[in-house]
Amino acid sequence: MRKPKIVVLGAGYGGMITTVRLQKMFSVSEADITLVNNNSYHYQTTWLHENAAGTLHHDKTRLNIKDVIDTSKVQFIQDTVVDIKPAEKRVILHNSELEYDYLVVGLGFESETFGIKGLKEHAFSIANINGARQIRDHIEYMFSLYPIEKRDELLTVVVGGAGFTGIEFVAELANRVPELVEEYDLPREKVRIVCVEAAPTALPGFDPELVEYAVKHLEKKGVEFRIGTAIKEATEDGIIVAKGDDVEEIKSETVVWAAGVRGNSLVEQSGFEAMRGRIKVDEYMRAPGHDDVFIVGDSALIINPENDRPYPPTAQIAIQEGYNVAHNIAVTVRGKGELEKFSFDNKGTVCSLGHDDGIGVVFGKKVFGWKASVMKKVIDNRYLFLLGGPLLVLKKGKLKFF
Amino acid sequence: MRKPKIVVLGAGYGGMITTVRLQKMFSVSEADITLVNNNSYHYQTTWLHENAAGTLHHDKTRLNIKDVIDTSKVQFIQDTVVDIKPAEKRVILHNSELEYDYLVVGLGFESETFGIKGLKEHAFSIANINGARQIRDHIEYMFSLYPIEKRDELLTVVVGGAGFTGIEFVAELANRVPELVEEYDLPREKVRIVCVEAAPTALPGFDPELVEYAVKHLEKKGVEFRIGTAIKEATEDGIIVAKGDDVEEIKSETVVWAAGVRGNSLVEQSGFEAMRGRIKVDEYMRAPGHDDVFIVGDSALIINPENDRPYPPTAQIAIQEGYNVAHNIAVTVRGKGELEKFSFDNKGTVCSLGHDDGIGVVFGKKVFGWKASVMKKVIDNRYLFLLGGPLLVLKKGKLKFF
Repeated sequence: MRKPKIVVLGAGYGGMITTVRLQKMFSVSEADITLVNNNSYHYQTTWLHENAAGTLHHDKTRLNIKDVIDTSKVQFIQDTVVDIKPAEKRVILHNSELEYDYLVVGLGFESETFGIKGLKEHAFSIANINGARQIRDHIEYMFSLYPIEKRDELLTVVVGGAGFTGIEFVAELANRVPELVEEYDLPREKVRIVCVEAAPTALPGFDPELVEYAVKHLEKKGVEFRIGTAIKEATEDGIIVAKGDDVEEIKSETVVWAAGVRGNSLVEQSGFEAMRGRIKVDEYMRAPGHDDVFIVGDSALIINPENDRPYPPTAQIAIQEGYNVAHNIAVTVRGKGELEKFSFDNKGTVCSLGHDDGIGVVFGKKVFGWKASVMKKVIDNRYLFLLGGPLLVLKKGKLKFF
Repeated sequence: MRKPKIVVLGAGYGGMITTVRLQKMFSVSEADITLVNNNSYHYQTTWLHENAAGTLHHDKTRLNIKDVIDTSKVQFIQDTVVDIKPAEKRVILHNSELEYDYLVVGLGFESETFGIKGLKEHAFSIANINGARQIRDHIEYMFSLYPIEKRDELLTVVVGGAGFTGIEFVAELANRVPELVEEYDLPREKVRIVCVEAAPTALPGFDPELVEYAVKHLEKKGVEFRIGTAIKEATEDGIIVAKGDDVEEIKSETVVWAAGVRGNSLVEQSGFEAMRGRIKVDEYMRAPGHDDVFIVGDSALIINPENDRPYPPTAQIAIQEGYNVAHNIAVTVRGKGELEKFSFDNKGTVCSLGHDDGIGVVFGKKVFGWKASVMKKVIDNRYLFLLGGPLLVLKKGKLKFF
């Protein structure tokens, strides 16, 4: 009998957990498992803001895929997905093609600029390792020019969005300012971090008490907030913002857009029914009408029954989806056992405010300060444990708790 | 009786040694000594190529002037010299003015582009701490863009000039390439260092055997030499070079001009008779016609009687001049003792080829390899010893010999 071919596209949180679970559940004789990813490494997207701020080296954030998967059980192909043809059960890669019996789509997110003029050309986004490293080096380069050119905009970093990523990024950057000031002989008072948020509050959706804590602590570190203020345009010189009828130009050589993500647009281009790159999956994490195509991570759209709105795409939900998808594939391939409905078990959310501070809700309880930051590290280390066991935690974990 | 005012302009090798010697020779009641410098720190110009390549942190290269001078004996003013008025015995600074009885001019060098089109706009020069740091950060930023933009010119560094500075810089940079390749996930074979020299040989004036050693070792590390090749123009995209009738464009995002220096042009602007910013001093290091104005370092032009050509401006000669100038000022101020004629005692020259390699002539003998690099460090440490004693050697010296 021909062995079924399982192909996993994308080695993000969802794709990696799915792959690691599949390799555990299947023997080599039972199925061919192939993982495709554009890089040789997997990275923790939720740590990228630290790489971008320069407070954590990107090598801590990424790990060689071949160090985590069992290459005797899983074939790894480093290549870029160009197209998916579900009707033909084929995937087109840049350098080759693959056939599949079962497909897992975990192609992640991309930046969404909502058509704001100039953002694509003039703003950075914290999207991947290359982009995060570029932001770090860009900021450093601009700062190195200041002692020569003395232009204030070289030292102004504008962050669009006071959501999760925006807040975590400005917190890291604010923590790094003293080091940068020393490295580049800068006048401290000239370094500005401006965080612009269109919503009427920072961290929309978070508990107001937690939001107040975060904003107050960040303001104390010098972060300027412009809440209820929309970015109208990004230009060569900075950004144009508006609060009601008040229009203002903020001159800046570094604009980071952290206010919008969408699913990978390849998902729509391949003919799947999707909303902004996210496929509204059935209860077993399958693409509607395609019982052989499972979706994980940011490519999947799941409605929260409590408020009838989509769950925000997080690492936590992607990891849980990975477990579910691996199980459901095993049941489908073997034709025995029962498919499991996916249901999200929200253990909480912690927003880091630098390495020793944070806010969050964990198991329904609010946490602040260093306790929150410890919780965050515990969560991050737990993921590494699930992925690669205790040795991976030792190698890549966050073990400096205070 | 009114105390004589001695003003030293510039805290380079010459100005610093002069000041440190003056403060040793004079009691507070004998003379007022003032040192003026645009930065709060003194730096070792001969180490800047390491800062620019990123192999040595610039904080190792510089030292706080107030940590070296005795501020109870020498007044330090951090300001920029705008004009010198020898007829009025006054110096105009950006923020104030000074009167002097005796002046020491040690205003250093600036880059000389010989009118080559575009060099001023498109090329960097290793001129000071700010400029060296900018080059380091520029190279890193360009390298960080490569994984995203994949343009080969991002990874091409062109160095104009295979003289002392050019060779020492490419050697450091070549040594750093493996680290940069790892940091930015680069294909090693795409990183190019191209050294262009108009003269018919690298290191013109050096012993041919030493030159051959240097070129061979650097080529082995991947440096490409274009000897007998002139830079015709620097553009947005790189440089245009010509060897005879062969004209070629080398695309590069990083062009470093290391082929020409001249004295500070302020010297001419102040009405001193000078050639390219250098004043041809009399035998006692004085500006012709100004017995109260002494010149040190790159501001001074001295003819080598052996070949009737000017001595090249080096740290070694500047240090010796500093000793001479301090002595001659003391004699002049006190009206007793004898003025000393300056004569250069050339102890040799070592050109570093990275931290463990070099070539040179020391006390008339050729040295190669690690021996040369040790000699170089001994020379550098000796200067620190002269400046600030053994503690300064411990703090800022090069103590890792192998």
